Amino acid sequence: MAPANIPDNFVKRTPPGDERERLVCEKCDFIHYDNPRIIVGAVCTWEGRYLMCKRAIAPRRGFWTLPAGFMEVGETAADGAAREAWEEARVRLEIDGLLAVYDVLHVGQVQLIYRARLATPDYAAGTESLEVDLYDWDRIPWDELAFPTVRWALQAHRELGDRPLAAPFTNPPDDLGGSPPD
Amino acid sequence: MAPANIPDNFVKRTPPGDERERLVCEKCDFIHYDNPRIIVGAVCTWEGRYLMCKRAIAPRRGFWTLPAGFMEVGETAADGAAREAWEEARVRLEIDGLLAVYDVLHVGQVQLIYRARLATPDYAAGTESLEVDLYDWDRIPWDELAFPTVRWALQAHRELGDRPLAAPFTNPPDDLGGSPPD
Repeated sequence: MAPANIPDNFVKRTPPGDERERLVCEKCDFIHYDNPRIIVGAVCTWEGRYLMCKRAIAPRRGFWTLPAGFMEVGETAADGAAREAWEEARVRLEIDGLLAVYDVLHVGQVQLIYRARLATPDYAAGTESLEVDLYDWDRIPWDELAFPTVRWALQAHRELGDRPLAAPFTNPPDDLGGSPPD
Repeated sequence: MAPANIPDNFVKRTPPGDERERLVCEKCDFIHYDNPRIIVGAVCTWEGRYLMCKRAIAPRRGFWTLPAGFMEVGETAADGAAREAWEEARVRLEIDGLLAVYDVLHVGQVQLIYRARLATPDYAAGTESLEVDLYDWDRIPWDELAFPTVRWALQAHRELGDRPLAAPFTNPPDDLGGSPPD
Protein backbone atom coordinates (compact mmCIF):
# COMPACT_ATOMS: atom_id res chain seq x y z
CA MET A 1 0.00 0.00 0.00
CA ALA A 2 1.53 3.29 -1.06
CA PRO A 3 1.43 6.08 1.51
CA ALA A 4 -0.71 9.03 0.47
CA ASN A 5 2.27 11.31 -0.11
CA ILE A 6 3.91 9.38 -2.97
CA PRO A 7 4.31 11.63 -6.07
CA ASP A 8 3.63 10.38 -9.63
CA ASN A 9 7.34 10.09 -10.38
CA PHE A 10 7.47 6.94 -8.25
CA VAL A 11 6.94 3.73 -10.23
CA LYS A 12 6.80 0.11 -9.14
CA ARG A 13 10.02 -1.71 -9.98
CA THR A 14 12.02 -4.60 -8.49
CA PRO A 15 15.45 -3.22 -7.51
CA PRO A 16 18.55 -5.33 -8.34
CA GLY A 17 19.02 -8.07 -5.73
CA ASP A 18 15.54 -7.59 -4.32
CA GLU A 19 12.65 -10.04 -4.61
CA ARG A 20 9.81 -7.55 -4.38
CA GLU A 21 8.50 -4.58 -6.29
CA ARG A 22 9.30 -1.30 -4.55
CA LEU A 23 8.33 2.26 -5.35
CA VAL A 24 11.32 3.77 -7.16
CA CYS A 25 11.67 7.41 -8.23
CA GLU A 26 12.10 7.65 -12.01
CA LYS A 27 14.08 10.86 -11.64
CA CYS A 28 16.70 9.91 -9.02
CA ASP A 29 16.36 6.12 -8.48
CA PHE A 30 15.49 6.65 -4.81
CA ILE A 31 13.95 3.42 -3.49
CA HIS A 32 11.02 3.90 -1.12
CA TYR A 33 11.02 0.85 1.14
CA ASP A 34 7.49 0.76 2.47
CA ASN A 35 8.02 -1.38 5.55
CA PRO A 36 5.41 -1.70 8.29
CA ARG A 37 5.55 1.07 10.82
CA ILE A 38 5.42 0.82 14.58
CA ILE A 39 2.66 2.45 16.58
CA VAL A 40 3.58 2.90 20.24
CA GLY A 41 0.87 3.62 22.78
CA ALA A 42 -0.36 2.90 26.27
CA VAL A 43 -3.40 2.05 28.29
CA CYS A 44 -2.97 4.60 31.09
CA THR A 45 -4.87 4.59 34.35
CA TRP A 46 -5.21 6.70 37.44
CA GLU A 47 -6.91 5.07 40.43
CA GLY A 48 -8.73 2.63 38.17
CA ARG A 49 -9.89 5.19 35.64
CA TYR A 50 -8.81 5.10 32.00
CA LEU A 51 -7.19 7.96 30.11
CA MET A 52 -8.91 8.59 26.78
CA CYS A 53 -8.19 11.17 24.06
CA LYS A 54 -10.70 12.56 21.55
CA ARG A 55 -8.90 12.82 18.21
CA ALA A 56 -8.41 16.28 16.71
CA ILE A 57 -6.87 14.87 13.51
CA ALA A 58 -7.70 12.50 10.70
CA PRO A 59 -8.33 9.64 10.53
CA ARG A 60 -11.31 9.25 12.86
CA ARG A 61 -11.38 12.84 14.06
CA GLY A 62 -13.82 13.20 16.96
CA PHE A 63 -13.52 9.56 18.00
CA TRP A 64 -11.80 8.38 21.18
CA THR A 65 -8.45 6.70 21.34
CA LEU A 66 -5.55 5.84 23.61
CA PRO A 67 -2.46 8.03 23.45
CA ALA A 68 -0.47 6.41 20.65
CA GLY A 69 1.39 7.29 17.49
CA PHE A 70 4.28 6.57 15.16
CA MET A 71 7.50 5.59 16.87
CA GLU A 72 10.42 7.80 15.85
CA VAL A 73 14.06 6.90 15.28
CA GLY A 74 16.31 7.56 18.27
CA GLU A 75 13.89 6.42 20.96
CA THR A 76 13.02 3.09 22.52
CA ALA A 77 9.49 1.78 21.99
CA ALA A 78 8.55 2.43 25.62
CA ASP A 79 10.03 5.94 25.48
CA GLY A 80 7.99 6.53 22.32
CA ALA A 81 4.80 5.52 24.12
CA ALA A 82 5.64 7.95 26.92
CA ARG A 83 6.38 10.71 24.40
CA GLU A 84 3.06 10.20 22.62
CA ALA A 85 1.20 10.33 25.95
CA TRP A 86 2.89 13.62 26.72
CA GLU A 87 2.18 15.06 23.27
CA GLU A 88 -1.47 14.03 23.12
CA ALA A 89 -2.59 14.17 26.74
CA ARG A 90 0.13 16.08 28.64
CA VAL A 91 0.59 13.21 31.08
CA ARG A 92 3.70 11.70 32.61
CA LEU A 93 3.67 7.89 32.62
CA GLU A 94 5.05 5.15 34.79
CA ILE A 95 5.28 2.37 32.26
CA ASP A 96 4.92 -1.16 33.59
CA GLY A 97 5.63 -3.20 30.45
CA LEU A 98 4.20 -4.50 27.21
CA LEU A 99 0.47 -5.24 27.39
CA ALA A 100 -0.31 -6.14 23.79
CA VAL A 101 1.08 -6.48 20.26
CA TYR A 102 -1.38 -6.04 17.41
CA ASP A 103 -1.00 -6.55 13.67
CA VAL A 104 -3.01 -4.10 11.55
CA LEU A 105 -2.29 -5.10 7.98
CA HIS A 106 -4.58 -2.71 6.13
CA VAL A 107 -2.47 0.22 7.33
CA GLY A 108 0.85 -1.65 7.51
CA GLN A 109 1.22 -1.28 11.28
CA VAL A 110 2.43 -3.23 14.26
CA GLN A 111 1.09 -1.68 17.45
CA LEU A 112 3.06 -2.03 20.69
CA ILE A 113 0.72 -1.11 23.53
CA TYR A 114 2.11 -0.70 27.04
CA ARG A 115 0.46 -0.76 30.47
CA ALA A 116 1.04 2.46 32.37
CA ARG A 117 -0.11 4.47 35.34
CA LEU A 118 -0.19 8.23 35.44
CA ALA A 119 2.57 9.60 37.63
CA THR A 120 0.19 12.38 38.69
CA PRO A 121 -3.50 13.02 37.91
CA ASP A 122 -2.63 16.00 35.71
CA TYR A 123 -3.70 15.92 32.08
CA ALA A 124 -4.73 18.27 29.29
CA ALA A 125 -5.49 18.07 25.58
CA GLY A 126 -2.37 18.20 23.40
CA THR A 127 -2.47 19.60 19.86
CA GLU A 128 -3.72 16.33 18.36
CA SER A 129 -6.56 15.97 20.89
CA LEU A 130 -9.87 17.83 21.13
CA GLU A 131 -10.43 16.59 24.66
CA VAL A 132 -8.75 14.32 27.20
CA ASP A 133 -10.38 12.72 30.23
CA LEU A 134 -10.24 9.91 32.75
CA TYR A 135 -13.16 7.46 32.52
CA ASP A 136 -14.52 4.79 34.80
CA TRP A 137 -14.69 1.51 32.88
CA ASP A 138 -18.46 1.71 32.43
CA ARG A 139 -18.31 5.30 31.24
CA ILE A 140 -15.73 4.78 28.48
CA PRO A 141 -17.33 6.00 25.21
CA TRP A 142 -17.46 2.47 23.78
CA ASP A 143 -19.61 3.47 20.82
CA GLU A 144 -17.23 6.22 19.76
CA LEU A 145 -13.86 4.47 19.81
CA ALA A 146 -11.53 5.36 16.94
CA PHE A 147 -10.09 1.93 16.14
CA PRO A 148 -10.72 -1.75 16.99
CA THR A 149 -7.29 -1.99 18.63
CA VAL A 150 -8.38 0.64 21.19
CA ARG A 151 -11.19 -1.64 22.34
CA TRP A 152 -8.92 -4.69 22.30
CA ALA A 153 -6.26 -2.98 24.39
CA LEU A 154 -8.76 -1.69 26.95
CA GLN A 155 -10.31 -5.15 27.25
CA ALA A 156 -6.86 -6.73 27.58
CA HIS A 157 -6.02 -4.32 30.41
CA ARG A 158 -9.30 -5.11 32.15
CA GLU A 159 -8.82 -8.86 31.75
CA LEU A 160 -5.32 -8.70 33.22
CA GLY A 161 -6.46 -6.60 36.16
CA ASP A 162 -3.73 -5.92 38.69
CA ARG A 163 -1.81 -9.10 37.90
CA PRO A 164 1.78 -8.96 36.65
CA LEU A 165 2.24 -8.67 32.92
CA ALA A 166 2.41 -11.97 31.08
CA ALA A 167 2.66 -12.95 27.41
CA PRO A 168 1.33 -9.91 25.51
CA PHE A 169 -2.22 -9.98 24.25
CA THR A 170 -2.55 -10.28 20.48
CA ASN A 171 -5.25 -9.89 17.83
CA PRO A 172 -8.47 -11.81 18.52
CA PRO A 173 -8.56 -15.12 16.62
CA ASP A 174 -11.29 -13.87 14.28
CA ASP A 175 -9.33 -10.78 13.24
CA LEU A 176 -5.68 -11.79 12.92
CA GLY A 177 -4.95 -9.07 10.38
CA GLY A 178 -6.75 -6.22 12.15
CA SER A 179 -9.82 -4.83 10.40
CA PRO A 180 -10.66 -1.16 9.80
CA PRO A 181 -13.24 0.47 12.10
CA ASP A 182 -16.88 -0.39 11.30
CA MET B 1 20.06 8.43 10.65
CA ALA B 2 19.60 8.54 6.89
CA PRO B 3 19.50 5.20 5.09
CA ALA B 4 22.44 4.65 2.74
CA ASN B 5 20.34 4.98 -0.40
CA ILE B 6 19.25 8.61 0.02
CA PRO B 7 20.26 10.70 -3.04
CA ASP B 8 21.68 14.21 -2.76
CA ASN B 9 18.39 15.82 -3.81
CA PHE B 10 16.99 15.04 -0.36
CA VAL B 11 17.39 17.88 2.14
CA LYS B 12 16.46 18.15 5.80
CA ARG B 13 13.33 20.26 6.25
CA THR B 14 10.42 20.36 8.71
CA PRO B 15 7.24 19.70 6.71
CA PRO B 16 4.16 21.86 7.46
CA GLY B 17 2.35 20.57 10.54
CA ASP B 18 5.26 18.39 11.57
CA GLU B 19 7.52 18.92 14.58
CA ARG B 20 10.64 17.22 13.24
CA GLU B 21 13.04 17.61 10.37
CA ARG B 22 12.46 15.02 7.66
CA LEU B 23 14.37 14.26 4.48
CA VAL B 24 12.43 16.01 1.69
CA CYS B 25 13.16 15.73 -2.05
CA GLU B 26 13.93 19.17 -3.49
CA LYS B 27 12.63 18.11 -6.89
CA CYS B 28 9.24 16.62 -6.05
CA ASP B 29 8.60 17.41 -2.33
CA PHE B 30 8.42 13.71 -1.48
CA ILE B 31 8.81 13.33 2.29
CA HIS B 32 10.92 10.40 3.42
CA TYR B 33 9.61 9.43 6.87
CA ASP B 34 12.46 7.50 8.38
CA ASN B 35 10.58 5.56 11.07
CA PRO B 36 12.11 2.64 12.92
CA ARG B 37 11.81 -0.64 11.12
CA ILE B 38 10.71 -3.98 12.48
CA ILE B 39 12.99 -6.99 12.42
CA VAL B 40 11.12 -10.27 12.79
CA GLY B 41 12.98 -13.41 13.71
CA ALA B 42 12.89 -16.59 15.75
CA VAL B 43 14.89 -18.79 18.06
CA CYS B 44 14.18 -22.15 16.43
CA THR B 45 14.93 -25.51 17.98
CA TRP B 46 14.73 -29.18 17.06
CA GLU B 47 15.05 -31.65 19.93
CA GLY B 48 16.89 -29.10 22.05
CA ARG B 49 19.32 -27.99 19.35
CA TYR B 50 19.41 -24.45 18.04
CA LEU B 51 19.12 -23.40 14.40
CA MET B 52 21.88 -20.99 13.40
CA CYS B 53 22.63 -19.31 10.05
CA LYS B 54 26.02 -18.08 8.84
CA ARG B 55 25.44 -14.77 7.08
CA ALA B 56 26.20 -14.56 3.34
CA ILE B 57 25.46 -10.82 3.22
CA ALA B 58 26.58 -7.58 4.83
CA PRO B 59 26.60 -6.51 7.55
CA ARG B 60 28.55 -9.13 9.50
CA ARG B 61 29.02 -11.55 6.61
CA GLY B 62 30.47 -14.83 7.88
CA PHE B 63 29.07 -14.39 11.40
CA TRP B 64 26.26 -16.48 12.86
CA THR B 65 22.72 -15.27 13.39
CA LEU B 66 19.16 -16.38 13.94
CA PRO B 67 16.83 -16.37 10.94
CA ALA B 68 15.49 -12.80 10.99
CA GLY B 69 14.94 -9.87 8.69
CA PHE B 70 12.82 -6.86 7.77
CA MET B 71 9.09 -7.35 8.18
CA GLU B 72 7.20 -6.58 4.96
CA VAL B 73 3.80 -4.98 4.49
CA GLY B 74 0.93 -7.41 4.07
CA GLU B 75 2.10 -9.96 6.63
CA THR B 76 1.70 -10.35 10.37
CA ALA B 77 4.85 -10.16 12.49
CA ALA B 78 4.73 -13.90 13.24
CA ASP B 79 4.18 -14.71 9.57
CA GLY B 80 7.16 -12.52 8.74
CA ALA B 81 9.34 -14.48 11.17
CA ALA B 82 8.23 -17.72 9.51
CA ARG B 83 8.93 -16.27 6.04
CA GLU B 84 12.44 -15.21 7.03
CA ALA B 85 13.16 -18.66 8.46
CA TRP B 86 12.07 -20.20 5.16
CA GLU B 87 14.12 -17.75 3.09
CA GLU B 88 17.31 -18.04 5.12
CA ALA B 89 17.25 -21.61 6.37
CA ARG B 90 14.56 -23.43 4.35
CA VAL B 91 12.77 -24.50 7.51
CA ARG B 92 9.08 -24.65 8.36
CA LEU B 93 8.27 -23.28 11.83
CA GLU B 94 5.73 -23.95 14.51
CA ILE B 95 5.70 -20.58 16.24
CA ASP B 96 4.86 -20.60 19.92
CA GLY B 97 4.70 -16.86 20.65
CA LEU B 98 6.76 -13.76 21.32
CA LEU B 99 10.00 -14.47 23.20
CA ALA B 100 11.64 -11.03 23.21
CA VAL B 101 11.38 -7.42 22.07
CA TYR B 102 14.64 -5.54 21.60
CA ASP B 103 15.33 -1.88 20.87
CA VAL B 104 18.38 -1.29 18.67
CA LEU B 105 18.61 2.46 18.31
CA HIS B 106 21.82 2.78 16.32
CA VAL B 107 20.13 1.09 13.35
CA GLY B 108 16.58 2.31 14.07
CA GLN B 109 15.16 -1.14 14.71
CA VAL B 110 12.69 -2.87 16.97
CA GLN B 111 13.28 -6.61 16.91
CA LEU B 112 10.38 -8.99 17.55
CA ILE B 113 11.86 -12.42 18.27
CA TYR B 114 9.58 -15.45 18.48
CA ARG B 115 10.04 -18.88 20.03
CA ALA B 116 9.61 -21.66 17.49
CA ARG B 117 10.19 -25.33 16.90
CA LEU B 118 11.04 -26.79 13.54
CA ALA B 119 8.12 -28.68 12.07
CA THR B 120 10.59 -31.19 10.61
CA PRO B 121 14.40 -31.51 10.94
CA ASP B 122 14.91 -30.41 7.32
CA TYR B 123 17.01 -27.33 6.69
CA ALA B 124 19.33 -25.87 4.06
CA ALA B 125 21.16 -22.62 3.40
CA GLY B 126 18.95 -20.01 1.71
CA THR B 127 20.44 -17.34 -0.56
CA GLU B 128 21.36 -15.06 2.36
CA SER B 129 23.14 -17.83 4.28
CA LEU B 130 26.52 -19.44 3.69
CA GLU B 131 25.69 -22.31 6.00
CA VAL B 132 22.86 -23.43 8.28
CA ASP B 133 23.07 -25.95 11.10
CA LEU B 134 21.56 -27.17 14.36
CA TYR B 135 23.80 -26.71 17.40
CA ASP B 136 23.75 -28.09 20.91
CA TRP B 137 23.81 -25.21 23.38
CA ASP B 138 27.49 -25.68 24.24
CA ARG B 139 28.50 -25.89 20.59
CA ILE B 140 26.85 -22.64 19.46
CA PRO B 141 29.60 -20.46 17.90
CA TRP B 142 29.40 -17.91 20.71
CA ASP B 143 32.52 -16.05 19.61
CA GLU B 144 31.24 -15.58 16.08
CA LEU B 145 27.73 -14.24 16.64
CA ALA B 146 26.65 -11.47 14.27
CA PHE B 147 24.81 -9.18 16.71
CA PRO B 148 24.35 -8.75 20.48
CA THR B 149 20.60 -9.41 20.10
CA VAL B 150 21.39 -12.91 18.80
CA ARG B 151 23.13 -13.72 22.07
CA TRP B 152 20.39 -12.09 24.13
CA ALA B 153 17.65 -14.04 22.36
CA LEU B 154 19.46 -17.36 22.70
CA GLN B 155 20.04 -16.71 26.41
CA ALA B 156 16.40 -15.70 26.86
CA HIS B 157 15.28 -18.95 25.25
CA ARG B 158 17.61 -20.95 27.48
CA GLU B 159 16.46 -19.11 30.61
CA LEU B 160 12.80 -19.74 29.82
CA GLY B 161 13.42 -23.42 29.10
CA ASP B 162 10.25 -25.37 28.38
CA ARG B 163 8.05 -23.07 30.45
CA PRO B 164 5.13 -21.22 28.84
CA LEU B 165 5.91 -17.84 27.36
CA ALA B 166 5.60 -14.94 29.77
CA ALA B 167 6.30 -11.23 29.51
CA PRO B 168 8.77 -10.88 26.62
CA PHE B 169 12.44 -10.48 27.43
CA THR B 170 13.85 -7.03 26.69
CA ASN B 171 17.25 -5.36 26.41
CA PRO B 172 19.60 -5.98 29.33
CA PRO B 173 19.55 -3.08 31.81
CA ASP B 174 23.08 -2.03 30.84
CA ASP B 175 22.26 -1.76 27.14
CA LEU B 176 18.75 -0.32 26.84
CA GLY B 177 19.46 1.17 23.41
CA GLY B 178 21.19 -1.86 21.91
CA SER B 179 24.87 -1.45 21.07
CA PRO B 180 26.65 -2.43 17.85
CA PRO B 181 28.67 -5.67 17.84
CA ASP B 182 32.08 -5.40 19.51
